Amino acid sequence: MDEKTVYWNHDTGSINLIEQTALPADYRTVNCKTIERLAEAIRRLEVRGAPALGVAGAFGVALSASLHDDSNMDSFLRLVREDAEYLNSTRPTAVNLSWGINRVYESIKDSSSPKEAAEIALHEAESIAAEDEMMCRKIGETGAKFLPEECTVLTHCNAGALACYTWGTALGVIRSAVEAGKNVSVISCETRPLNQGSRLTAWELSRDNIPVKTITDSCAAFLMKRGEIDAVVVGADRITHDAVFNKIGTYMHAVCAKHHDIPFYVAAPTSTFDAKLSEKDVVIEERDRSELAKCGERLLIPDSVDVLNYAFDSTPVELVSAIFTEKGAIRAPYSVKEILQLKVSI
Amino acid sequence: MDEKTVYWNHDTGSINLIEQTALPADYRTVNCKTIERLAEAIRRLEVRGAPALGVAGAFGVALSASLHDDSNMDSFLRLVREDAEYLNSTRPTAVNLSWGINRVYESIKDSSSPKEAAEIALHEAESIAAEDEMMCRKIGETGAKFLPEECTVLTHCNAGALACYTWGTALGVIRSAVEAGKNVSVISCETRPLNQGSRLTAWELSRDNIPVKTITDSCAAFLMKRGEIDAVVVGADRITHDAVFNKIGTYMHAVCAKHHDIPFYVAAPTSTFDAKLSEKDVVIEERDRSELAKCGERLLIPDSVDVLNYAFDSTPVELVSAIFTEKGAIRAPYSVKEILQLKVSI
Repeated sequence: MDEKTVYWNHDTGSINLIEQTALPADYRTVNCKTIERLAEAIRRLEVRGAPALGVAGAFGVALSASLHDDSNMDSFLRLVREDAEYLNSTRPTAVNLSWGINRVYESIKDSSSPKEAAEIALHEAESIAAEDEMMCRKIGETGAKFLPEECTVLTHCNAGALACYTWGTALGVIRSAVEAGKNVSVISCETRPLNQGSRLTAWELSRDNIPVKTITDSCAAFLMKRGEIDAVVVGADRITHDAVFNKIGTYMHAVCAKHHDIPFYVAAPTSTFDAKLSEKDVVIEERDRSELAKCGERLLIPDSVDVLNYAFDSTPVELVSAIFTEKGAIRAPYSVKEILQLKVSI
Repeated sequence: MDEKTVYWNHDTGSINLIEQTALPADYRTVNCKTIERLAEAIRRLEVRGAPALGVAGAFGVALSASLHDDSNMDSFLRLVREDAEYLNSTRPTAVNLSWGINRVYESIKDSSSPKEAAEIALHEAESIAAEDEMMCRKIGETGAKFLPEECTVLTHCNAGALACYTWGTALGVIRSAVEAGKNVSVISCETRPLNQGSRLTAWELSRDNIPVKTITDSCAAFLMKRGEIDAVVVGADRITHDAVFNKIGTYMHAVCAKHHDIPFYVAAPTSTFDAKLSEKDVVIEERDRSELAKCGERLLIPDSVDVLNYAFDSTPVELVSAIFTEKGAIRAPYSVKEILQLKVSI
C-alpha cells in the first residue's frame, strides 16, 4: 500500500491515519490535530493492530510535545506526561501502545527546550515507525523463502499493513514473496465476528493487486481437501513456549492443515514471545455478545439466546510448521531454550 | 414447536410456510397461492432444509393440480409437469425436493379427472408430511440412544424442525434425547454466510426451552480442545456410498472432531442416500457473492474482491462415527451393500 497506516503529516504538523472502521465501504484518512482526536481514533478502533498502536502512541507523544510551549521544562514535561497517560488509558491492555508512548516520552526527558523536545520526539517516533517497517520486511523475507514459486496461501484475520506501520507480518510474508517474483494468490477467511479478513485483508491485498478471494471461515478445510491451499500463514498476538495465541479460528485452521499435510506458518516479531508463560496460564478474552448478535442493524441471534465469544484461541506449537520472525525462522519442534535465545539476542 | 414448517392451509386451499429469512427478528407465516410464489419461497430460502423441501415440493404439485382444470387429462398432466419441473429447477442440488415432487406427480398419473388428481395429490402430500414427522421421530429415537445422559452437543446449520415438516433430524436427535430425560445442552454454530445456526437453530431450540449457546463457526475446534463438546450431530443433504454432503463447514467439524476423538454423527432419512453416486460425481453448488459481501446493509467485502461461496462440502464416511436413519443406525465402516439394503428395505 502507498499510504502508511498511521504517519506524521509534515505539512500540518499532525497525525494522519487510515480510518479502518469505515473500510471497505469508504477509504478515508483522518487527520488528528489534537490528542483528544487521536485518543478517540484509538478508542473507536479507527486504528488497531498491536504494532500500529505502538506507532500511533509514539506519534501521539510527538504531537503533544509540538502542541505545548511552556518555557518551564518541568511544567512542559508534566503537560506531555498527562497527554501520554491519557492516550495510554484508551486501550489499557494494548502493550504496544504504552511501549511506543513510553519510548518517545523517555527520549525527551533531558531536552533543553520544548522546541528541541518536539524535534527529538518526532525523530524517535519516526524511528519506531521505520523500525516497524524494517521488522516486517525481515519477517517477510524470512517467510517468503518458505512459499513455493506458485502457490495459494490461506490467511485469517488481518496481520497486514493495516495492523502495522506498513507491509504487515503474515501479509508481509505474502508481499515479500510477490516482490521476490513468486506467483501468490491469497484466500482470506472473513474472520467472524468482526470480519477483519473480508473488510481489511481483502481490501489491502486488492489495493496492491495481489489476487485475493474471500471465503467463510468454515470453508477453509474443504478447500484444503480439494488441494486448493498450499500453505497457511497467520499472525500472532502472543507466543508462549508451547502455544501460539491468535484470532479465534486459528486453531481450527492448524488442525485442518495438519490433517491435510499442509504447512501452517505463523509470522510475528520476537516481541510477541512470552516464554515465561505456558498455554494454560493465558486467560482468553471473551468479548461482547453484540459482536455475534448483530451485523450492522441486522439481528442474527434471538434475544433469548446467549453466546460464547472467545476473541482468541491457542494453537499448540506441535501444529505449527515454522514461526517467521525478524531474526529468522524457528521450525518445530521448538525448545524453550531456542525461543529464549532468540528473545535474548534481539 | 407448535406450528409446522410448511403445511396445507385447508381454509384457503394453498400452502403456508414459516418465513425463515425473517427469523429471528420477525416470526411470520407466508401464504403461497401460486406456484411462482412457492418457487420464490424456495429460491429465496424462505423454506429450506432437505426434508422440508420434499414436503414443500409435494404440496407444490398438490397446489398445481388444484390450480389447473383442463378437462383433457393429457394436457392437464403436462401443465402440472411443467409446474413440477419449474419447482424442481429452483434448487437443483436438493434431491428431496425432486423426490417429493416426483412422488406426488407419479401418484396422479392414472387419475380420471383434474378434481380427482388434486384430491389424490393433496392426500399424497399430506402422507409425505406425516411420514416425515414419523421419520424424524424414529431418527431421533435412534440417535438419542447414542448421547450420554448429560452432554453438550455441537451442531451446525439447521437440521431442525424448521428444516423438516417438524421435529427435525439432527435437532430431532436432541429433542428425542431431552424427551427421554437426558440433560442435553447445545452449541449452535452460527453457520456463515446465511447464519441458519444462529438465526434458526438457536431460535427453535430456545422456543423449546432446550439450553443453547451460539458461537462463530471458527470457535468449534477450540471448544473441542477445551473438552466442552461431547458429540457433534449434523444433518445431511445427500449421502453417497463414500461421503456425506451437508452445509459448508460440516467437513471442518468432522476433521476437528476426529482430531479430538469426539464422535461425529449424521442424522438423515434413508431418502438422503444416493448410493449410485460417488463423492467425486457430485457438483457442489456455488452461491452468490452477495451472501458474503453484505450483511443487511453493511458492506463486508470491497467490490474489487471476489469470493468462493460453496454452499456445501463433503465429508468422507471414514470421519463419520454413525449415521442415524429412521431404519436404525449405520456405524462406520459402511459398505455400499449395507446402504443399498437400507434403501431397498424402506
